[in-house]
Amino acid sequence: MKTNLLLILLLASSLSGFSQEAKNLAQKLGFDRNAKLLIIHADDMGLSHGTNSAVMEAFQKGGISSGSIMVPCPWFPEIAEFAKNNPHFDIGIHTTLTSEWDKYFFGGVLPPASIPSLVNKNSYFYPSVEEFAKHAIADEVEKELRAQIDRAISFGVKPSHLDNHMGTVMSSPEYYQVLLKLGKEYRLPVLIPADMIAGISPQLLEMLSKNNIVVEHLFMINQASPAEKWGEPYLKFISEMKPGLNEIIVHLAYDNDETRAIMVNHPDFGSEWRQHDLDFVTSNELKKALKDNDIKLVTWRQIGEVQYPEK
Amino acid sequence: MKTNLLLILLLASSLSGFSQEAKNLAQKLGFDRNAKLLIIHADDMGLSHGTNSAVMEAFQKGGISSGSIMVPCPWFPEIAEFAKNNPHFDIGIHTTLTSEWDKYFFGGVLPPASIPSLVNKNSYFYPSVEEFAKHAIADEVEKELRAQIDRAISFGVKPSHLDNHMGTVMSSPEYYQVLLKLGKEYRLPVLIPADMIAGISPQLLEMLSKNNIVVEHLFMINQASPAEKWGEPYLKFISEMKPGLNEIIVHLAYDNDETRAIMVNHPDFGSEWRQHDLDFVTSNELKKALKDNDIKLVTWRQIGEVQYPEK
Repeated sequence: MKTNLLLILLLASSLSGFSQEAKNLAQKLGFDRNAKLLIIHADDMGLSHGTNSAVMEAFQKGGISSGSIMVPCPWFPEIAEFAKNNPHFDIGIHTTLTSEWDKYFFGGVLPPASIPSLVNKNSYFYPSVEEFAKHAIADEVEKELRAQIDRAISFGVKPSHLDNHMGTVMSSPEYYQVLLKLGKEYRLPVLIPADMIAGISPQLLEMLSKNNIVVEHLFMINQASPAEKWGEPYLKFISEMKPGLNEIIVHLAYDNDETRAIMVNHPDFGSEWRQHDLDFVTSNELKKALKDNDIKLVTWRQIGEVQYPEK
Repeated sequence: MKTNLLLILLLASSLSGFSQEAKNLAQKLGFDRNAKLLIIHADDMGLSHGTNSAVMEAFQKGGISSGSIMVPCPWFPEIAEFAKNNPHFDIGIHTTLTSEWDKYFFGGVLPPASIPSLVNKNSYFYPSVEEFAKHAIADEVEKELRAQIDRAISFGVKPSHLDNHMGTVMSSPEYYQVLLKLGKEYRLPVLIPADMIAGISPQLLEMLSKNNIVVEHLFMINQASPAEKWGEPYLKFISEMKPGLNEIIVHLAYDNDETRAIMVNHPDFGSEWRQHDLDFVTSNELKKALKDNDIKLVTWRQIGEVQYPEK
């Protein structure tokens, strides 16, 4: 683990340009060298109407600086229209290869016959990363993810970045290579959570090129707090935040009939959870913490302009 | 029009066996020769969670005697599971070839490349019957509808009958032939609204065989009434009902965020409309009217047992 940490630091230093001579990412974005940069990011846009409504509210209230769309989901057209009509909001593609709910499912943008290794007998994606990794062929992953990006673009979305639902592509360097390749090809920054991938496999870290900009610290909660203390883990992360690029991932939705029906049997990342996250990101508590800790909210669009200045 | 009416009467008499010597449909179902038979039918199962919840409530409260599922819709798996676990409820397939809402879409069960004449550039069905009829090739209609029935069966649904969303297949004898053919092949009764198809084209009537059982009078509202008088048109139809097979089609959903988002810009058959229909079918007002007018509620499953006794 120590080796991995060293690798991250070296990498972060090299990839983000933490050297005396060159401007680092913060400086390239117009901040001080030691600025604490933060993306507050909503996953799962397009999943449902209750998700879309919550994310739209959070964007409009300035509670998040970024979000990403699950193209294969039923409510993708609604959120694609929102993205198209609101190009000032930072919206990317949440590349999706799993369908994890009990009564609400999605399969590929491509027909099942074109991606047999990615879908079950009902033509839906597998529910878990494990089942995905047991079956998926990298060529089909690439075809499907390319189709997801292209479909979003054909609906008028101008994606700001790529990330990945449930971290499926981190389950093997072969899959991860696909995401990096697509980022390069579409000239879009890819969320690369340096600390997380180092923990999974140093091989993933070694695949990165000098051009990749990494998120040094990615934070998301994976355990519910009591409602009245919901924000505490987030506030702790913010108060301890280091200079460099950080990202907080939140999961937003209205806690209503639709969301409860989708997330039945899933207390973690479930309906109440998502309402709490929405309440937190739109709270004054968060605004105050960002101000008190001198956090600079940034977007993937800004990162993309640094990574691909010629675009 | 007079010729059409004569045709219907002759047909109804011949197809339903209104002759002195043979038992008529009512008698075959164990009722008096002149019984007024009624199917109260909920369309659009599977469309959304708000639709599914409302239809489940209506079945459980005895407010409807039948319903049918739109297989290509996002919430199909939820309602398929309900149908599988509740085989005593009368559930058929609402064959679907249109996607009529503004922000919520569905395409075929088959991949777009297999049914190019049925889908638009976004791979969704066309929104109107007119656009469907302008493009659709009968062979592709047949492939797609067969795939919808097969998918329902593969999810454990035992369909009781076939009907058709928005009457797309009535737009040409060629398409109508497909539905009749599939009914015969799967040995399932098909909703044949005799009075309606006579009004569209006598050619459709002439396609029926002696084996087809027709619905002599099909009723659905196509205009909203004030909330407090919502039931009036239904009650009028019931009080004037003639002996023979009748069907009332209702459109049920909870009037909530999800339903309002799907049905935005559609006051007709919209969110409030569907809540009113749900309130009416689960009301004592309807129960009383059925009793007062000595109406016999029947199911498509019962009709199927008469039509295909050997099944």
